[in-house]
Amino acid sequence: MAIYQRVALIGLGLIASSMAHAMRAGGLADEIVGTARSAETRATALEIGICDRVYDTAAEAVQGADLVVLAVPVGAMAAIAAEIAPHLAAGATVTDVGSVKQAVIAAVAPHIPAGVHFIPGHPLAGTEHSGPRSGFASLFQNRWWLLTPAEGTDPAALARLLSLLVAMGANVDVMDAAHHDLVLAVTSHTPHLIAYTMVGVADDLRRVTDSEVIRYSAAGFRDFTRIAASDPTMWRDVFLNNKEATLDILGRFTEELFALQRAIRLGDGEHLHAYFTRTRAIRRGIIEAGQDTAAADFGRSAQVQAGVKPAGVNPAGVNPAGEEH
Amino acid sequence: MAIYQRVALIGLGLIASSMAHAMRAGGLADEIVGTARSAETRATALEIGICDRVYDTAAEAVQGADLVVLAVPVGAMAAIAAEIAPHLAAGATVTDVGSVKQAVIAAVAPHIPAGVHFIPGHPLAGTEHSGPRSGFASLFQNRWWLLTPAEGTDPAALARLLSLLVAMGANVDVMDAAHHDLVLAVTSHTPHLIAYTMVGVADDLRRVTDSEVIRYSAAGFRDFTRIAASDPTMWRDVFLNNKEATLDILGRFTEELFALQRAIRLGDGEHLHAYFTRTRAIRRGIIEAGQDTAAADFGRSAQVQAGVKPAGVNPAGVNPAGEEH
Repeated sequence: MAIYQRVALIGLGLIASSMAHAMRAGGLADEIVGTARSAETRATALEIGICDRVYDTAAEAVQGADLVVLAVPVGAMAAIAAEIAPHLAAGATVTDVGSVKQAVIAAVAPHIPAGVHFIPGHPLAGTEHSGPRSGFASLFQNRWWLLTPAEGTDPAALARLLSLLVAMGANVDVMDAAHHDLVLAVTSHTPHLIAYTMVGVADDLRRVTDSEVIRYSAAGFRDFTRIAASDPTMWRDVFLNNKEATLDILGRFTEELFALQRAIRLGDGEHLHAYFTRTRAIRRGIIEAGQDTAAADFGRSAQVQAGVKPAGVNPAGVNPAGEEH
Repeated sequence: MAIYQRVALIGLGLIASSMAHAMRAGGLADEIVGTARSAETRATALEIGICDRVYDTAAEAVQGADLVVLAVPVGAMAAIAAEIAPHLAAGATVTDVGSVKQAVIAAVAPHIPAGVHFIPGHPLAGTEHSGPRSGFASLFQNRWWLLTPAEGTDPAALARLLSLLVAMGANVDVMDAAHHDLVLAVTSHTPHLIAYTMVGVADDLRRVTDSEVIRYSAAGFRDFTRIAASDPTMWRDVFLNNKEATLDILGRFTEELFALQRAIRLGDGEHLHAYFTRTRAIRRGIIEAGQDTAAADFGRSAQVQAGVKPAGVNPAGVNPAGEEH
């Protein structure tokens, strides 16, 4: 049964196209319309059927929609909100999928007219790919979708959005926007910055070592490149818009890194061993929390480990992956 | 056809047990014997059949073996080499699987008697698990195995070891030990230290945020915990024994990290975007080099993406994994 009559997707990248697939699969929207800045993306969206209709502008796309999803980089939210505001239907819900919440709220909320419900959101789901062809219906299965509604948000509008997210397979949590930004700085934003940095360092050195760095890049480095392959515009906007929390966590990170660096320099094996033992235990907590499996992996699929050759199409061939020691 | 008559595995962890499985599967050794420091590990090795016989000491285990594999942490190599030296068979080959090569050569080579061939090696393969039960036959399939033989190494002994590694599925490269240690500092050792650090930072904060860090740890952070779950003793020894190269690369890393941190503080979006675009391209090089696949993954198996439910046993259940944004 459809939860919304007309859903307007503003931006047609990985998240929006996955939502479209998931809504189609579950019959959750009578109609899905959309817009994207690039004509090519709009044409692709029609071609692969994730939108029933596409519009050249966000102002046109939102008209008559009872759910509007802002799925553009965080830095583009303010302009989109200003553009769509006069065209939003009374009683509609506007949500977003931005990775930062305080900055999005500051950019969008002032534009939302009375009678329209703005409920900021953030699905903790994705891959390192982007664009309308990268989406798939199961992206949100068993992933968290965080909502950071303002106090006084209409309970019926919130419940309706929540039922859509749950129907797409997500686990939903509601939290304060500032708290969201701190938690994400730890679990996502700072790790991404660090991965980008390590890959950049290796790239400098690669020029010296004639591509050996790439050749011998089993995990850890390979896992870093995967993280560091994510969309540059999205991540630029994340760091510019979650500046304080990211700088805070980065400060803690460099402090701890310097302590480990000093232990290496001084040959303090006890310090290193105790630290590595502590971090190992954290892994268990994550497995218990159901956000990963205990299967030996490092990018290796469960089937490869079990000795069964993976089926399916794979552009680059499936390689059992290993961690170098 | 067996390549060695009797292989002695000194240490029975992930690498040694995987070698045993791979040698059994290919009929590459007539007999596999082994030893480990712990009686429990020795009993497990017999129970699961990775060794035909186990011995209480390395000195006993190597007697009559034509291949001896030192598969203990790098810090334990010198004592083992001193212990086994008087008991090595004439014409035998001794190899190791340590992640650092110069330090292992310095620890082991002086003990090796004339007429015994010492050929240092390093398989770039592994998982975050350890112990005799963690091994599996396909661990080395399409992974690199680096050898760093001294000049003047007997070509026939080298060719024989090489044929074993290739028969276990590995790609073999021969390189200088110092060069090996630099390349690995970039592709493996420094990334591991950084992952350990980030997980440690999150753990500090976890106490404040009541396990949310774990709860919302889709990748990036989840990938870091996987790396940081590796064996603490092994990694302590890696850092203590590849000190110079690791400190060199760490120095470059912090320089670049500070530059990015400054760009965030100053709101320099162009710098961030250019940097992230450059690192994204490196990912392509790795896919082209065949060390990973282009399939959207973040720990997600290819089958899950394709919408096929993964078969197989999985202690914690299979969760499609996602990257938080």
